[in-house]
Amino acid sequence: VKIGVIGAGQLGRMLGLAGYPLGLTFRFWDLTQDSPAFPLGENMVGAYDDSEALERFASGLDLVTYEFENVPVSTAENLAARLPVWPPPAALAVSQDRLSERTCFAKLGIPNPPYIGVNSKDELEDAVRTIGLPAVLKTRRLGYDGKGQQLLTTAADLAAATVSVPSILEGFVSFSRELSIIAVRSTAGETHFYPLAENHHGDGILRWSIAPAPGLRLELEAMARDYATRVLDAFGYAGAFTIELFETGSGLIANEMAPRVHNSGHWTIEGSPVSQFENHLRAILGWPLGPTERPEPAGLINLLGTLPDLRWVLSQPDVHLHLYGKQSRPGRKLGHLTVTGHPGEDMKSRLAELLASLNST
Amino acid sequence: VKIGVIGAGQLGRMLGLAGYPLGLTFRFWDLTQDSPAFPLGENMVGAYDDSEALERFASGLDLVTYEFENVPVSTAENLAARLPVWPPPAALAVSQDRLSERTCFAKLGIPNPPYIGVNSKDELEDAVRTIGLPAVLKTRRLGYDGKGQQLLTTAADLAAATVSVPSILEGFVSFSRELSIIAVRSTAGETHFYPLAENHHGDGILRWSIAPAPGLRLELEAMARDYATRVLDAFGYAGAFTIELFETGSGLIANEMAPRVHNSGHWTIEGSPVSQFENHLRAILGWPLGPTERPEPAGLINLLGTLPDLRWVLSQPDVHLHLYGKQSRPGRKLGHLTVTGHPGEDMKSRLAELLASLNST
Repeated sequence: VKIGVIGAGQLGRMLGLAGYPLGLTFRFWDLTQDSPAFPLGENMVGAYDDSEALERFASGLDLVTYEFENVPVSTAENLAARLPVWPPPAALAVSQDRLSERTCFAKLGIPNPPYIGVNSKDELEDAVRTIGLPAVLKTRRLGYDGKGQQLLTTAADLAAATVSVPSILEGFVSFSRELSIIAVRSTAGETHFYPLAENHHGDGILRWSIAPAPGLRLELEAMARDYATRVLDAFGYAGAFTIELFETGSGLIANEMAPRVHNSGHWTIEGSPVSQFENHLRAILGWPLGPTERPEPAGLINLLGTLPDLRWVLSQPDVHLHLYGKQSRPGRKLGHLTVTGHPGEDMKSRLAELLASLNST
Repeated sequence: VKIGVIGAGQLGRMLGLAGYPLGLTFRFWDLTQDSPAFPLGENMVGAYDDSEALERFASGLDLVTYEFENVPVSTAENLAARLPVWPPPAALAVSQDRLSERTCFAKLGIPNPPYIGVNSKDELEDAVRTIGLPAVLKTRRLGYDGKGQQLLTTAADLAAATVSVPSILEGFVSFSRELSIIAVRSTAGETHFYPLAENHHGDGILRWSIAPAPGLRLELEAMARDYATRVLDAFGYAGAFTIELFETGSGLIANEMAPRVHNSGHWTIEGSPVSQFENHLRAILGWPLGPTERPEPAGLINLLGTLPDLRWVLSQPDVHLHLYGKQSRPGRKLGHLTVTGHPGEDMKSRLAELLASLNST
């Protein structure tokens, strides 16, 4: 079985590493030669909206998936006309547009902050009158890792704000922590959930996660599963699916969805009996899913910008190294560490200790 | 860091899968296009004794290793003249010749069965007079998976036996079970041992293994570690190293060594914190080794000849599938299953149950 993957970043790379033991082969499509997944399969370089590239990509594949959500929807749809494409292009389309995403959540009864689509400064000012401050102005498209967001706290912030592209104003959510749930549903309808992760960001980029989220109330876990299931049902979804959620005094509020494997689930490679990458592949092939439980704590640390002393990292018996084969660049995700804890371990302390040591190597 | 691997079979494939997360890249050298490791790195097809192929292979590599022991020693030595080659070619040379292997074990005080090198029928008859029957006549070179062996039980077997190539006669060892120990030593001198595996063969091919070997007496484990250490010391060894051993009423008797990762250690991919493949790579790079303990039982089942129903396999929550990307052929190793047990589980029963089900799918 040959799988075509649109995008050849680290997620594609980890999909490939998970897929070979299942007997799969891969073709990766990306914009540049030097892509992290390229050593792990056939390579295709070309623009995603180039129809000739699409022909070459599709030829001889059994199935198509993608590893990032800014794949042009028309490309996914054109491929879907001739090949199975999972997750469904409709989910891709919704996830690309924050306003569609909010509308989708609202329609499915998944709690949103207050939100209003805004296309001009006038509309923004109207929206602020309705929602109030603080609020967050976000571009509807192409935002990731905190890019394309402006926090508006004061009238001066509002006066300085610009609306140059279709945007959305969201009421500021006062939350105690950010969580994410990764669900996997197969084309045969089987659904598994990984334990929720607690996520910590810096400059909008995920820095570290802990799973299971420490001290999470069972009803919140059930609520997150319910929300994820509503989206899976709505789209006739197959594959891995993520919702980022804010935990607040009044329950969970959706932040955003990702129709793919997710950074906050990278700990599953060693931390779960079957990783999100293997389960995503099993799911889109309609194969039985593997177990996803993790009773002991696991941790994840992203390696950003420059690599720490790798010998020190490898000398830590509870740490697993994952490099993406990328050149250093400020803020770039170069790899991650999985930390496998023992029952009852205080993973937050262990990650704090590791982060302190990594910064000093 | 780019590693050159001589041989691109399943062991090379699993080395590649273990190496990418460490940031390594690979070049594989094999005789035929359709080799299991080829999707996972640069490919080189050519005879191992072709000096022009050797030039192309060596160019731009940082380090060379090999995944099978019938690499021509001259090739390994020629490469070692310009690049680090691990394990050391001297260990390779000894492992290729059963008589040298026995002599090496004897010199290091590692128990052998009685053995005599024989180059003719006359010498064989002399040897039988010394060693007695039953005995096993083995070719000195190119034996694997039980090939090149004749069991001599009666005078009629002896009369029918032929010695067409340099051979060795070994006294028949009456053993209660076959064990194997995998050691890993780094170029920095750090040494780790995996728990001994109990191995079961059929038609000379490994069928299944359990690790840790159930009920193994601690002094036998210590003895196996001591024997492995003597060989590692003798060769200034780095990399993974295996000795197959017979457990007998009077202790352990060496069967053979392998200067590489070993089929009886494939369970380490999920069964150990760090697999034999990752630790082999860390070892030859001089990086810190990872932990190798496995307190709970783990099992390994080889998939030979034809594949079972893979959906059934994937539906077993304690089973991990590893396919090698090979075409079916009678007796061919197409993949393996790792079975991860829980503390106190009777792994022998679980493997028996799985084997029965696999045969009926």
